[in-house]
Amino acid sequence: MVEIVEVGPRDGLQNEPTLLSTEQKVELVRRAVAAGARRVELASFVNPRLVPAMADAEAVVAGVAGMPGLVTSGLVLNVRGAERALGTAVDEVNVVVVSTDAFSQRNSGMPTADAVAMAGKVAALVSAEQRAVSVTLAAAFGCPFSGEVPVARVADLARQCAVDGVSEIALADTIGVGVPSDVRRLVAAVRAAVPSHVRLRAHFHNTRNTGYANAVAAVEEGLDVLDSSVGGIGGCPFAPNATGNIATEDLVYLLHRSGIATGLDLERLRADAVWVGEQLGKQVPGLLSRAGAFPS
Amino acid sequence: MVEIVEVGPRDGLQNEPTLLSTEQKVELVRRAVAAGARRVELASFVNPRLVPAMADAEAVVAGVAGMPGLVTSGLVLNVRGAERALGTAVDEVNVVVVSTDAFSQRNSGMPTADAVAMAGKVAALVSAEQRAVSVTLAAAFGCPFSGEVPVARVADLARQCAVDGVSEIALADTIGVGVPSDVRRLVAAVRAAVPSHVRLRAHFHNTRNTGYANAVAAVEEGLDVLDSSVGGIGGCPFAPNATGNIATEDLVYLLHRSGIATGLDLERLRADAVWVGEQLGKQVPGLLSRAGAFPS
Repeated sequence: MVEIVEVGPRDGLQNEPTLLSTEQKVELVRRAVAAGARRVELASFVNPRLVPAMADAEAVVAGVAGMPGLVTSGLVLNVRGAERALGTAVDEVNVVVVSTDAFSQRNSGMPTADAVAMAGKVAALVSAEQRAVSVTLAAAFGCPFSGEVPVARVADLARQCAVDGVSEIALADTIGVGVPSDVRRLVAAVRAAVPSHVRLRAHFHNTRNTGYANAVAAVEEGLDVLDSSVGGIGGCPFAPNATGNIATEDLVYLLHRSGIATGLDLERLRADAVWVGEQLGKQVPGLLSRAGAFPS
Repeated sequence: MVEIVEVGPRDGLQNEPTLLSTEQKVELVRRAVAAGARRVELASFVNPRLVPAMADAEAVVAGVAGMPGLVTSGLVLNVRGAERALGTAVDEVNVVVVSTDAFSQRNSGMPTADAVAMAGKVAALVSAEQRAVSVTLAAAFGCPFSGEVPVARVADLARQCAVDGVSEIALADTIGVGVPSDVRRLVAAVRAAVPSHVRLRAHFHNTRNTGYANAVAAVEEGLDVLDSSVGGIGGCPFAPNATGNIATEDLVYLLHRSGIATGLDLERLRADAVWVGEQLGKQVPGLLSRAGAFPS
């Protein structure tokens, strides 16, 4: 069994030029839940002037209230964002620490060491309210500004971030440069660096067509939770023509054909991918919605 | 070291709606050779009324004569095609045996058992002229007409096709449905079924975003020769909106980042992918030409 965190409403929509309404976002979540999704990242609580697509974060959380079986999460980059998230009913706060100083400074306005300290404060704040905290180590496989990111650096960051209250650490290939051998090395190093009760999650982008191979490697290394977005929506601000997250429906096809359950309904996901493409007015990068499942 | 067979001029162009001229095809090969390609599948010797894009097979072979270091191959579906190929200077004949009767009948006009017998005749004819023979087992991972293809059936076909003169057998996921666990199982079964001097090659399509993960699995299982097409061009006649072969440049990025040499120049391949997209008037499915290499 691999758990899939649907990040379409957050990472998928964050960089799309077409802004969806709150109602459309709530419908996207409703569809994901109907397809079997249990964990959905709803929004990021960030500066609406910098990320207009996320300006209605609070309204999206309110809009999905009561959906059966749904565990919601919200992404934050700082304490202010965590406070906003705690003002909603979100179940989990996912705090981002960018692995390199150059990228962290641009993304979060602070160097990585300060982001680690910030994540510790967020973990204390959020866990004090009995909500879940995960930390995402962004650019863990490579940085658009400083290039290669040493495995030892990421492992050390994971160790520093595995403070009380943090139940999960995600390794994110934010710009889609990693390959399976990177995944194997990084997972092994991070696993050795954090307490055994901390679950590892992986977050891949298919920017260079390595995302699904990386997902396979992560699962082979024992990870049982992966992020993906329906349709594979979501761009990369550092590669204007690049594709986004790995697509939920393509990942589910791959896992199911590999004999690994996900609890998700592939036919519903295919229909959702078509639907989200219609809302965004574009062909989604995910391929299952075009090619169909097999056997049909 | 993994050897990459550039199949763009054949599988890449075979199903494209835009027909390239002989001169454009020769230029495609010239560019591949300049990027380091040593084996290129130039064309299929098939009925030009059924596959108009391949009508100039003989002219393409003549056009690439004298390119330094180039080993050329031509695909055939029957003895007539092999005779045409032998009328040219092509170095290698790649004879196709489709793994299921339903698909073989439509593709080659004969059931699989007859295709196996035909491949034996082709092997005898071609090897008598001291040219290389490879056999491609098409639809080895699934059939658009009959669905699942048993591993034991493909292994048995490989055993039957490994006759005198056949130096290589390719396992082709013609419709792009396989996943890495399929690759591992099939490679192991076929390896056990054929003499050790027969080299195994793999041919993947990225129709459902599993092609690159499959390539990784094949290499991890010990294969050292893979097919790909520059730009990932080539459709699938059974899935009108589907993408084609895995893209040479994306595969090379993946392999090089994994520490595996290919002898190919990634920057030249990226430029070639852009060039072939311009010739075909479309954005190629390969992603490296959009996203760029890493580190840049």
